[in-house]
Amino acid sequence: MNQKLKVSIVGASGYAGGELLRILLFHPKIEINQVTSLEFIGQPISIVHPNLRRITNLQFTKTEDLVPCNILFVAIPNGKSMSLMAELMKIAPRIIDLGADFRLRSAEEWKKWYKTDHQAPKLIEKFVYGIPELRKEEIKKANYIAGPGCEAIVSILSLWPLIKNDFIEEERIIVDSKMASSEAGSTPSLSTHHPERSRVARSYMPTGHRHTSEVEQELTINGQKPKVSISATAVEIVRGILVTIHTFLKKDFEEKEIWKIYREAYKDAPFIRIVKEKGGIYRYPEPKILQGTNFCDIGFKKDNLNNRLVVIGAIDNLVKGTAGNAVQCMNLMCGFEETLGLEFPGLHPI
Amino acid sequence: MNQKLKVSIVGASGYAGGELLRILLFHPKIEINQVTSLEFIGQPISIVHPNLRRITNLQFTKTEDLVPCNILFVAIPNGKSMSLMAELMKIAPRIIDLGADFRLRSAEEWKKWYKTDHQAPKLIEKFVYGIPELRKEEIKKANYIAGPGCEAIVSILSLWPLIKNDFIEEERIIVDSKMASSEAGSTPSLSTHHPERSRVARSYMPTGHRHTSEVEQELTINGQKPKVSISATAVEIVRGILVTIHTFLKKDFEEKEIWKIYREAYKDAPFIRIVKEKGGIYRYPEPKILQGTNFCDIGFKKDNLNNRLVVIGAIDNLVKGTAGNAVQCMNLMCGFEETLGLEFPGLHPI
Amino acid sequence: MNQKLKVSIVGASGYAGGELLRILLFHPKIEINQVTSLEFIGQPISIVHPNLRRITNLQFTKTEDLVPCNILFVAIPNGKSMSLMAELMKIAPRIIDLGADFRLRSAEEWKKWYKTDHQAPKLIEKFVYGIPELRKEEIKKANYIAGPGCEAIVSILSLWPLIKNDFIEEERIIVDSKMASSEAGSTPSLSTHHPERSRVARSYMPTGHRHTSEVEQELTINGQKPKVSISATAVEIVRGILVTIHTFLKKDFEEKEIWKIYREAYKDAPFIRIVKEKGGIYRYPEPKILQGTNFCDIGFKKDNLNNRLVVIGAIDNLVKGTAGNAVQCMNLMCGFEETLGLEFPGLHPI
Amino acid sequence: MNQKLKVSIVGASGYAGGELLRILLFHPKIEINQVTSLEFIGQPISIVHPNLRRITNLQFTKTEDLVPCNILFVAIPNGKSMSLMAELMKIAPRIIDLGADFRLRSAEEWKKWYKTDHQAPKLIEKFVYGIPELRKEEIKKANYIAGPGCEAIVSILSLWPLIKNDFIEEERIIVDSKMASSEAGSTPSLSTHHPERSRVARSYMPTGHRHTSEVEQELTINGQKPKVSISATAVEIVRGILVTIHTFLKKDFEEKEIWKIYREAYKDAPFIRIVKEKGGIYRYPEPKILQGTNFCDIGFKKDNLNNRLVVIGAIDNLVKGTAGNAVQCMNLMCGFEETLGLEFPGLHPI
Repeated sequence: MNQKLKVSIVGASGYAGGELLRILLFHPKIEINQVTSLEFIGQPISIVHPNLRRITNLQFTKTEDLVPCNILFVAIPNGKSMSLMAELMKIAPRIIDLGADFRLRSAEEWKKWYKTDHQAPKLIEKFVYGIPELRKEEIKKANYIAGPGCEAIVSILSLWPLIKNDFIEEERIIVDSKMASSEAGSTPSLSTHHPERSRVARSYMPTGHRHTSEVEQELTINGQKPKVSISATAVEIVRGILVTIHTFLKKDFEEKEIWKIYREAYKDAPFIRIVKEKGGIYRYPEPKILQGTNFCDIGFKKDNLNNRLVVIGAIDNLVKGTAGNAVQCMNLMCGFEETLGLEFPGLHPI
Repeated sequence: MNQKLKVSIVGASGYAGGELLRILLFHPKIEINQVTSLEFIGQPISIVHPNLRRITNLQFTKTEDLVPCNILFVAIPNGKSMSLMAELMKIAPRIIDLGADFRLRSAEEWKKWYKTDHQAPKLIEKFVYGIPELRKEEIKKANYIAGPGCEAIVSILSLWPLIKNDFIEEERIIVDSKMASSEAGSTPSLSTHHPERSRVARSYMPTGHRHTSEVEQELTINGQKPKVSISATAVEIVRGILVTIHTFLKKDFEEKEIWKIYREAYKDAPFIRIVKEKGGIYRYPEPKILQGTNFCDIGFKKDNLNNRLVVIGAIDNLVKGTAGNAVQCMNLMCGFEETLGLEFPGLHPI
Repeated sequence: MNQKLKVSIVGASGYAGGELLRILLFHPKIEINQVTSLEFIGQPISIVHPNLRRITNLQFTKTEDLVPCNILFVAIPNGKSMSLMAELMKIAPRIIDLGADFRLRSAEEWKKWYKTDHQAPKLIEKFVYGIPELRKEEIKKANYIAGPGCEAIVSILSLWPLIKNDFIEEERIIVDSKMASSEAGSTPSLSTHHPERSRVARSYMPTGHRHTSEVEQELTINGQKPKVSISATAVEIVRGILVTIHTFLKKDFEEKEIWKIYREAYKDAPFIRIVKEKGGIYRYPEPKILQGTNFCDIGFKKDNLNNRLVVIGAIDNLVKGTAGNAVQCMNLMCGFEETLGLEFPGLHPI
Repeated sequence: MNQKLKVSIVGASGYAGGELLRILLFHPKIEINQVTSLEFIGQPISIVHPNLRRITNLQFTKTEDLVPCNILFVAIPNGKSMSLMAELMKIAPRIIDLGADFRLRSAEEWKKWYKTDHQAPKLIEKFVYGIPELRKEEIKKANYIAGPGCEAIVSILSLWPLIKNDFIEEERIIVDSKMASSEAGSTPSLSTHHPERSRVARSYMPTGHRHTSEVEQELTINGQKPKVSISATAVEIVRGILVTIHTFLKKDFEEKEIWKIYREAYKDAPFIRIVKEKGGIYRYPEPKILQGTNFCDIGFKKDNLNNRLVVIGAIDNLVKGTAGNAVQCMNLMCGFEETLGLEFPGLHPI
C-alpha cells in the first residue's frame, strides 16, 4: 500500500469541520495529521462531534502548532481565512478553503457583498472555484480551491445546463431556497433557540442573499451575467437544502429536450442524479434522503399553462454543500478516484 | 340573552369539521345542533377530535337524519357537495360550503381543473366566494357561501392590493407555497406516513395546483386575468401555509408606497396584519405563531438589485384557510361582530 | 360591569410571562397594568411575544417603576424573587410567584436542593403552595401563592389519589418524565441550539431533579414522606410534559377500584380529565393536544403480569405547569369562576 | 479476490429489508442475488428505497422464484416465516430471520405472547438467538439465526452485566422505552398519519410489550428468570430507541464498580460503547447520533438518594435493532471481520 497523504484541518470544531473528519477518517488514502480549534484546544474531538466517539483519539491543537502537511482544509468563519492564507500556504502545498473568502473573482465584488475590504486580493487569482462538475480539469491542476457556498452550488448545478444551452431567460431566474438549521453554524443564538426555530417556515432572507454573487459569477457565459434572485426560507430540517427554481423558457421546449441537455451535461458526474419519477412518493429531489451523502439530485417540471420551467435541486448542505464537495475536489487534485470516501448512499427512512 | 342560532355541520369528522366544532362550541351566538359523519355514526365526536373531550357530548349522526337548522356548514371532500346541495338547501336557509364545488364561477372552469362534469351548474351563481376582506358587502347579503381554498385565500389576500393598484406585472406572478401535512386531510396514505412525511422539503406539486383557478378568478379586474404560477412544497409542519410570492414591480416604487396601499386595502380588516419588523426574529409573517388563529399576516421586501417585490403571506390552513374564515363569513351573514368566536391570539412558543 | 382588577407582571419577557399575558389580556375581570423586563425596557411586548401583535400596545417597564396594583405575578428565574419579595409585598396585597423560591416549606430543604441560602426564610410561611385541586380552600384565603414546578404539578396530581388511598408502595415511585424544550426558558444555549436539540431523546437528568422535593413534600400524608425518583428525558416537543409513573400496588386492586378513587378525588376539578379510552389513537393522556390548555389529563394501566400500576399524566408545561395554573389560583383568590379565562380547549391536529 | 457469497432477501421492500440492502450492497464479501416482495414484483428497488437510486439495478422478484444461494435473510411480518421456513431451508444452508417467529425457546411462550399456535415448533431448536455480544461462539457455529426484537436487544445489552454480576434486584426492573415511528413498519395507518403522529409523546403500550418475553428469556441465568416491566412511549423520531431502565441495586455499589463490570462484559464488543461523559451535551447515550450505525451505546447513573440505578441504552432500531445486527451475525457465521460493512459512524448534527 502506498503511503497515505497527511491532511490537517484548520477549524475542525464546527459542523463543516466535523463532516470533514467523518469523511476523511474513513478515506483510504488519507491520514489526518492535526485539527485545530480556538475553543477546544487539548480536548478530544468527540466533545463536539459525538458521532466520532471511539472512532479516533484525535485532539484539537492550536493553529500556531500546525506542522507541514500535504493538504490543508480550512473551515473557519467567512472573512477569517484571507488574512491567514499567506501563512497557511507555507504549511501545505495544497489548500482547500471552505469559506467565502476566495470564491469571488474580484476584491470589489467581495466588498460589495461582504461589506469589508478584502485582505489578500493578490491571492484571489490563485484559487479555483471548486465545483468539480463544471471545472474538473482546472481542479485537477489546482493547488488552491475555494469551496462554493452551499446554497450556491446546488443553484449553479441546477441551472447550468439551461444557461449553457440558452434555454431560459437570463433576466428572470428566481431561486426559492428551503434551508436547514445547520447552515447557520454551531453557535447558538436566539434565532436557533429550539422553541423559536422549531417547525418554522421562516422567510429569513427574502432578498439580498450573498451567494447571489457566486451564482451569477459561475453562470456567466461569454460575459453575459444572468440575473438571479434568491429568497431563503428556513424550514424544520437540520441538514439539507431544497431549491425550487422558477425560470422562463425562451422557446416552447419539450420536456425530453430538457432531459437531454441535463443528461449530456452530467453524463460523467458521479454525484449528480436526474430525479423525475412517475411513481412512488419521492418523485423529485428531496434533501431528506440525501443526509450524509455527496449527491446533488436535480429534477424539473414544465408548467404547461405558461412557459415556466420549475427546476428542483437538493443537497446535504454539509456534504455536497461543503465538506463532501471539498473531499471530491481533493480526490481530483490528488488523482484519486473522484468518489473515494464519498460512497455513503444515505438513509431511508430518516 | 337572545336565542342562539342553530347550526349543523355536514362532514364533521375531518380536520376542517373539527376546527368548526372547536370554534363554534365557544361561539356565544351559536348552538350546535347536529354533526354528521359517514364513518363514525353514533360515536362521540371526541373519538376523532380528542381536544374536545369533556367539552361536549355531541355524537355523529347520519346525513339523512339532519333536521332543519338556521345555518349549515358543509365540510366534505371536493366534488361531493354539488350533488347533495339541492337537498341541503331544503334543510337550511344559509349554507357555507368549505369545499371546492362552488368556488369557480363556471362549470367549464370546474371541468378544466377538476376533470369531472359539474353536477349542479345552475346553483353556482347562488354562491358568493367567501373572502370577507374583499367581498364583505356581498357576504352580508348572501345565503350561500363557497369558502376559498386555503392556498388560494392567502395568495389572493397577499396579492390583492398590488393588483388593484396596478403595481406589478400580471404576467409573471410566482407563488412558492410551503404547506402543512394537515392540508391533505385526515385519511392516511403512504405520502403522509410519518417516516416518509417527517422532515420533508418535498416538491409535491411544482406545477398544476388547482387553486390557481380561484386565485386568477378573484384577482381578475376589469376582465384582465393575471397569470399566477403556483409551486407547492410540503414542509415539516402540521398546520400553516407560508407563501413566498415573487412579483415584478411595474415601476420603481418605494417600500413606503407599497406600505400605503396595503394599509389602505386592509384598514378595516380585523384579521389582516402587515408584518415587516426591523427587530426580533419574527420579522415577516410566519405560520408557526398563527396556529389556531384566524389571522392572515402579510409582509413584503423589495429586492434592490432588480425590480422584484417579494410578498410573504401566512395563515393557519385550517382556520383562516378553512373553518375560521367560514365562521367569519357566518358572522357577517348574521350581523354579528366580525371577530366573534375568533379571538384566539395564538401561542408562542409552539 | 364591575371595575376590573389591576394586575402587573414582574418578568414578563420570558415564556411564562408571555403565557400570563396571552391569558390575562383576554380575562374579563382583569386589566393589565404594567409588565417589567430587565432587557426590553421601553419596547413593545410583541418584540418577544409575536403572537400578541396588534392585541395590545403594552410596553415593558422597569421593576423600579412599578406602581401599586391589586395582584402581582412574579415570573423571574429561580432564586431571584426571594430577595425582592419584601419590596414587592408593598406594591400589591396579593402575589403569585411562579418561581421556586417559596415552594418548599423550609429553608433547609431549599438549601439542600438549590445549593444556596434562602434569603427570606421568614416569608416562606406566608405562601401557600398553589395546587388548586388539592388546596382549594387555602388558596381562596391566601394572599401569597407559590406556583408549583411544572414537572411537580403533573406528578403530584397523577399520584395524589393513590397515595391518599394508600394504594401504592411509597418507597418505589418512579417518575419517568418526557420534557419539552420550552421548559428550559427563553435564553439560548448550546443544549437548545436547534441542530443539537432537534429530534432528541436525551436523558438530560436521569437523577437529582429538583422538583423531587416539592413532589415528596406535597405527597406527605400524616408525616409519611414517600420516595419519588424522577428521571427526565428531553424529547422533540416545544410545549408539554408527559410523565410515565411506575408504581407498585399494595394489593391486587382492580382497575375499576382505581378508577373510582381518581373520580372521587377530582370530581370537582374542572381541569382534570381521566383519560383511558378503548378506541381511537389518543387512548391515554398526551401533551400534543394540550398545548395552550389548562388541562391535566391523567390515565393509568395495570400491568397484569405483576403488581405494577403505570400512571400517565400530561400537561402543557407553560399553562397548567405555570401560567394557567397561576391564573386558576388567582381566580380562586378573587372569587371568580375557577375556569375564567382558561377555556381554550386546545388544537387538533397540531 | 475470493468469490463473493450470494445472498438473497425474502421481504426486501420493508424498512428492515431496505436497511439490509443499504448495508449489503456495500459489503465487500457479499453479492446480492435476489430480493423478494409481495407488492412490488418486477419493479426496481428504488421505488420504495429512494436512497438506493443509481446504486443498484436490482428488481423485486417473487418468493417462488428464489434460486439457491449461500445465505438467506428473511424480513417479513411476525408470524409469517414459521410456515415458510421448511421450504426456505432448502434454498440456503444459512438463514437469518429478522422476525419474531424463532426467538422464543418454546412454542408455549410463543402462544402466550403472540396469541397463535406456532406452526413449526420442531424448528425452534435449530435457531440461535442472534445477540453477538452474548452468544458469539454459538453464532459462529450456527446455521439458523433468529434476530432479536429491536426493543429487546437494547434492553438485554443494557441489563446483562448487572444481572450476570448479581448487582440488581431481579424482581423490579422497569424499562421505559422511547420509540421511533419506523418501528411500526412501512404500512400507513391512522396512528402513523403525520398530523397525528407528529410531535407525540404517546404512551402507546404502557404494559404488555411482547419483547418482554425475549428479554426475560435472555436474562435468565441458572434458571432464575428476572421480572422485566416494559412501558413504551412513541416520540418524534423516525429512527432510534432510547431505553431508560430503572433498577434497584442490591448493595450500595459505587459507580466505579459498575463501570468495571460493564467494561469487562463488553471489552471485546466492537459495537458497544459505554457513554457517561462529564462534559458536552451528549453525556449519555442518544439515538439521535446513532442513526445509520450499528452501535449500542450504554450509560448509567446512580441515584444517591436511594439505591436506584438508572441505565440508559440507545440504538438505531433498524440497524443494531434489526438489519445491522443481522449482518453482524452473518459476519460471525461466515468468519468475516465482525464489523465488516458496518463501519458507518453516524452523522452529527442530524
